[in-house]
Amino acid sequence: MTDERSCLIVFTPSGKRGRFVPGTPVLQAARKLGVDIDSVCGGRGICGRCQVLVAEGEFAKHGITSRSDHLTAFSEPEQRYAAKSELKEGRRLSCHARIENDVVIDVPADSQVHHQVVRKEFEAHDIELDPVTRLYYIEVQKPDLGDARGDLERVGAALSEQWQLDDIRCDFAALKDLQDLLRKDAWQITVAVRNERDIVAVWAGYKENLYGIAIDVGSTTIAAHLCDLASGDVEATAGSMNPQIRFGEDLMSRVSYVMQNPGGDKELTRAVRKAINQLIRQVADGAGIQTSDILELTLVGNPVMHHLVLGISPVQLGVAPFALATDSALELNAEGLGLRINAGGHVYVLPCIAGHVGADAAAVMLAEAPYADEKISLIIDVGTNAEILLGNNQRMLAASSPTGPAFEGAQISCGQRAAPGAIERVRIDPGSLEPKFKVIGCDLWSDEDGFQEGIAGIGVTGICGSGIIEVLAQMFLAGLLNQDGVIIGDLAARTSRIIADGRTASYVLHEGEPDVVIRQNDVRAIQLAKAALHAGAQLLMDEFGVEHVDTIRLAGAFGSHIDVKYAMVLGMIPDCDLTRVSPAGNAASTGARIALLNKAARKDIEERIRLVEKIETAVAPAFQQHFVEAMAIPHKTDPFENLAREVSLPARTVANTNDLRRKRSRRKRLARP
Amino acid sequence: MTDERSCLIVFTPSGKRGRFVPGTPVLQAARKLGVDIDSVCGGRGICGRCQVLVAEGEFAKHGITSRSDHLTAFSEPEQRYAAKSELKEGRRLSCHARIENDVVIDVPADSQVHHQVVRKEFEAHDIELDPVTRLYYIEVQKPDLGDARGDLERVGAALSEQWQLDDIRCDFAALKDLQDLLRKDAWQITVAVRNERDIVAVWAGYKENLYGIAIDVGSTTIAAHLCDLASGDVEATAGSMNPQIRFGEDLMSRVSYVMQNPGGDKELTRAVRKAINQLIRQVADGAGIQTSDILELTLVGNPVMHHLVLGISPVQLGVAPFALATDSALELNAEGLGLRINAGGHVYVLPCIAGHVGADAAAVMLAEAPYADEKISLIIDVGTNAEILLGNNQRMLAASSPTGPAFEGAQISCGQRAAPGAIERVRIDPGSLEPKFKVIGCDLWSDEDGFQEGIAGIGVTGICGSGIIEVLAQMFLAGLLNQDGVIIGDLAARTSRIIADGRTASYVLHEGEPDVVIRQNDVRAIQLAKAALHAGAQLLMDEFGVEHVDTIRLAGAFGSHIDVKYAMVLGMIPDCDLTRVSPAGNAASTGARIALLNKAARKDIEERIRLVEKIETAVAPAFQQHFVEAMAIPHKTDPFENLAREVSLPARTVANTNDLRRKRSRRKRLARP
Repeated sequence: MTDERSCLIVFTPSGKRGRFVPGTPVLQAARKLGVDIDSVCGGRGICGRCQVLVAEGEFAKHGITSRSDHLTAFSEPEQRYAAKSELKEGRRLSCHARIENDVVIDVPADSQVHHQVVRKEFEAHDIELDPVTRLYYIEVQKPDLGDARGDLERVGAALSEQWQLDDIRCDFAALKDLQDLLRKDAWQITVAVRNERDIVAVWAGYKENLYGIAIDVGSTTIAAHLCDLASGDVEATAGSMNPQIRFGEDLMSRVSYVMQNPGGDKELTRAVRKAINQLIRQVADGAGIQTSDILELTLVGNPVMHHLVLGISPVQLGVAPFALATDSALELNAEGLGLRINAGGHVYVLPCIAGHVGADAAAVMLAEAPYADEKISLIIDVGTNAEILLGNNQRMLAASSPTGPAFEGAQISCGQRAAPGAIERVRIDPGSLEPKFKVIGCDLWSDEDGFQEGIAGIGVTGICGSGIIEVLAQMFLAGLLNQDGVIIGDLAARTSRIIADGRTASYVLHEGEPDVVIRQNDVRAIQLAKAALHAGAQLLMDEFGVEHVDTIRLAGAFGSHIDVKYAMVLGMIPDCDLTRVSPAGNAASTGARIALLNKAARKDIEERIRLVEKIETAVAPAFQQHFVEAMAIPHKTDPFENLAREVSLPARTVANTNDLRRKRSRRKRLARP
Repeated sequence: MTDERSCLIVFTPSGKRGRFVPGTPVLQAARKLGVDIDSVCGGRGICGRCQVLVAEGEFAKHGITSRSDHLTAFSEPEQRYAAKSELKEGRRLSCHARIENDVVIDVPADSQVHHQVVRKEFEAHDIELDPVTRLYYIEVQKPDLGDARGDLERVGAALSEQWQLDDIRCDFAALKDLQDLLRKDAWQITVAVRNERDIVAVWAGYKENLYGIAIDVGSTTIAAHLCDLASGDVEATAGSMNPQIRFGEDLMSRVSYVMQNPGGDKELTRAVRKAINQLIRQVADGAGIQTSDILELTLVGNPVMHHLVLGISPVQLGVAPFALATDSALELNAEGLGLRINAGGHVYVLPCIAGHVGADAAAVMLAEAPYADEKISLIIDVGTNAEILLGNNQRMLAASSPTGPAFEGAQISCGQRAAPGAIERVRIDPGSLEPKFKVIGCDLWSDEDGFQEGIAGIGVTGICGSGIIEVLAQMFLAGLLNQDGVIIGDLAARTSRIIADGRTASYVLHEGEPDVVIRQNDVRAIQLAKAALHAGAQLLMDEFGVEHVDTIRLAGAFGSHIDVKYAMVLGMIPDCDLTRVSPAGNAASTGARIALLNKAARKDIEERIRLVEKIETAVAPAFQQHFVEAMAIPHKTDPFENLAREVSLPARTVANTNDLRRKRSRRKRLARP
């Protein structure tokens, strides 16, 4: 055996291959061949990110005769690493394992820089990991009297030599402590470099992990997801109420507060930033890390939340023409926003689409990627307003529809947020007209044994959004409600649960402290909300020129909790095969997480947003017409027979529906000569 | 006359010419031909920056027959402007004066964007005006329901349409108030745009002027120059003591303070920033402007001041190898440094050259531009340390020499800063050995009539740096001091002004409250300082390989106040024809002002600095040798006979000098085989 031999090395799963002289470190061969293997320490056997396996079974496939000494023996640095950290059976550190003979090397997903992050429930697509900020461990040349370069310039030289990162700049926050940190651990530091160009943070010695946090600021709740930027894993999640609620339940009342109280926007900004900082602290504690380990934060929210977190007055969003300060994405210093992550941390704010379609809708669009598919998707994010996206890889439309907060349990007499004690599932027997229900916090139906024990300490406190949808759908299916949304007072003769009170009637769902009663006004509130939602979707479909969509995705907490078939019974969403309707989970948070983990996704959504056609419901004449038509229950046409079978719709109601459908068709013909 | 005619237009002084149809505004023709004419309002007749003259005398030269109606008649906007502001005889607003026949148009310097700023006394070069930030007046499209773009995006569109500025970004500080300001004056705003790319400030309506400030932070004094960024004029100047003096007189004692008091650097940073803010306020008041009208600040200072203003601990600058945190130029937000100019204002910090050769030396280099000339220049900036630059367009060297603060009057028994009451000029009669002197604040010599009245309220309080140089030179020339720097005690027999006290003697320059007495230790302090200065310059000359330089420029307050010939008598600077030695004024401030007014100068000095060879005096063996040799007085060689004539040097001293010169030549031969 001489050094003139060359060995074949094949990497899986990439299939990249090449010949190298014996003794070449596997990592070095990988770099030469462009094989994606991670490393923070730069091949010093410290970080353990570059682990590989000898892929025994693969040899024959690549025409290699199997033999035992493919790589050099377990080296001393590998032994040291294995003693200190976990090194699974058969794994080698590719920086210290050297090629000895022909070999097939398997690079496991967790050793790849750009690996796919495992998709969570509801999520539409995988995330390819490629964060904007990465860690680099370097050993820096000490200064001496013959070398007048500054410490930073020597750090730059080290990054260039050891990591091929050239023209490095340094954020001022990171520069301040650089000299101290260089001298703390023998001129060895780990730097966080953003966009392969800007040093944003520095640590003495070797630093293992870097984190990012995705924040979704809703009018009602704020959600935070802490992610490991090297693995893409969600390390901790937390949510809290938006403390701005004390200035107004819904968006417009908060904007009114600002209009009536000069400087009030500053109070709202302080409140929401404080809540975000508490969440940051909470997830950091949950994951057992320092908040200074968090270098990147992505932020989404509706336009009013977007402006208020940024410290921009939202008053223009409260009056026509609802002008945003900016619809562009923003990159800001976290410190400038008073957000307490690392002092060199950055905040990426996703772009807004329009005055009522915010960065949260942009995030939903990024998460669902309807623009990547031929199929026409309708994506609905129900909050205080419903933000609606419709389109495919040819064309994207967006609108906001003023549903109001009824779907969230507000404006409903016994309504409440989705919290323990809230009724969330309802069934009404069409014969006896007696109901049964489930409350959040207990898995039993109210007529099952043990229910009373199950709700001990919880109680039945009200009804949440998904419960309201179900009770109205069930009332309709049981004949308690007609297609005009009128509770049938005459049925008081058949059941004591109907209470007729002059011109209107109520349905007593639960007697207790408090009673949970569905009143005529509650039905009206839901009718208005669902009509707005349906009309908005219909308007976009008109604009797109389609009568049906291929898929419907329901985003947000409400979209994830409602039973889709009851939403269809009530006519909340356009006709669609039920199997094509699915919840998208908290897609706004998912979008924020994608922007956190993949830098190309940022550019991508910024460009996609530019191409979205913004439809303003307030000035579209057709919207009013659709709205009036959508007030009736149910509002189903073609797939309705299927639906009727599934939910045991009485024949009478089906007939009514078909009548309505014919009526609509006639009106349409009149309206459009 | 029909529109098919075309008229010749010739612009002077550029000589650019072209043909245009009658009715073309002169400004538009200028733009087409690339003639440099200023405008803030974009041709709306508001700003008056685009004034031109019909150059009557020039017509024949360009082959144009003179006639009276070259341009359209005085327009209504011009009349309005003339009524409101000054419009000199014959001047027209080129945006509203239209071409009617062949015409020669003179563009006066004050109407050119890139005009030369008139050079001040001592300054080496003109400054070409081209600041990094400029004002643009725009009229912005109102939002409406059919246009979902944000306000910022509509501002961007206006800048693109009205000023051809594309891909505009907006600093976050400027974004916050944008919506309010747009609505304040009917969608007309003026924006300050930095680097033709970043909106950094916004004002409602039309805004006339923009300012910048150049700050030179010395160990002892801080100087501020406020400039109009459109004219380049210095509108106000102010100086103050550096309040850090209470933490230590010189740089090293301040660094020691920080070393001994953890966190002490923060006190020093606070103190100097506060003083800078007071100066900013002072010059703004002086010029009658708001501090928010100041958008740009340039900062120079020695390395320790550089670090302290930036909030970086200077401790590494106090110990070998004197490592800078960075030697690169920095661009920072003024707000981040706590400097109170416009919230969107930026700070440009010039680069440092080496651990002892700071951003002040870089500024001196920029002001003097020795790299632009074939001639070899020696530039000396005397402060607590002397920073020395040597070179030409082939090669530049830099070093710092530890002169200590003696030249500033410190370490001198009766020394004081250059302030009213300080002796600054001295003559000693070689016969009577009687002195006469001048003090700062009075133009009379002490032996002239009216001197006592002249110094009433001022008094004689001590002696400043230039006074010390003169008194020692005069003492030497009068034979009161020998070439070894010993005050001749034997002369006590001839004059009561010599007081012999055991082994040493003193010379009483002035009797009063207090007495001003030159003691032996004072002579030693100056000898050490001047030897260090001379040795540093000599070391650079050795490295460069020259025995003589073509010019010597003395920068800084000290360099401007000393009489050059006495500096030569004492041997402070290398031999040079006296006519080639001149003061450079406050060249560091001039450099800061150049970087303020011309953006290309920033790139230029950053690149030049990289090419400078840094010589560390502390490790150069030749430095010690030069230092020892330079202790003697005088240390002049070739031009010394001329000098002797001019200052009436007694023959004996010339002989001594020649002896010394021969001795030095012998040593040199021994040292360099």
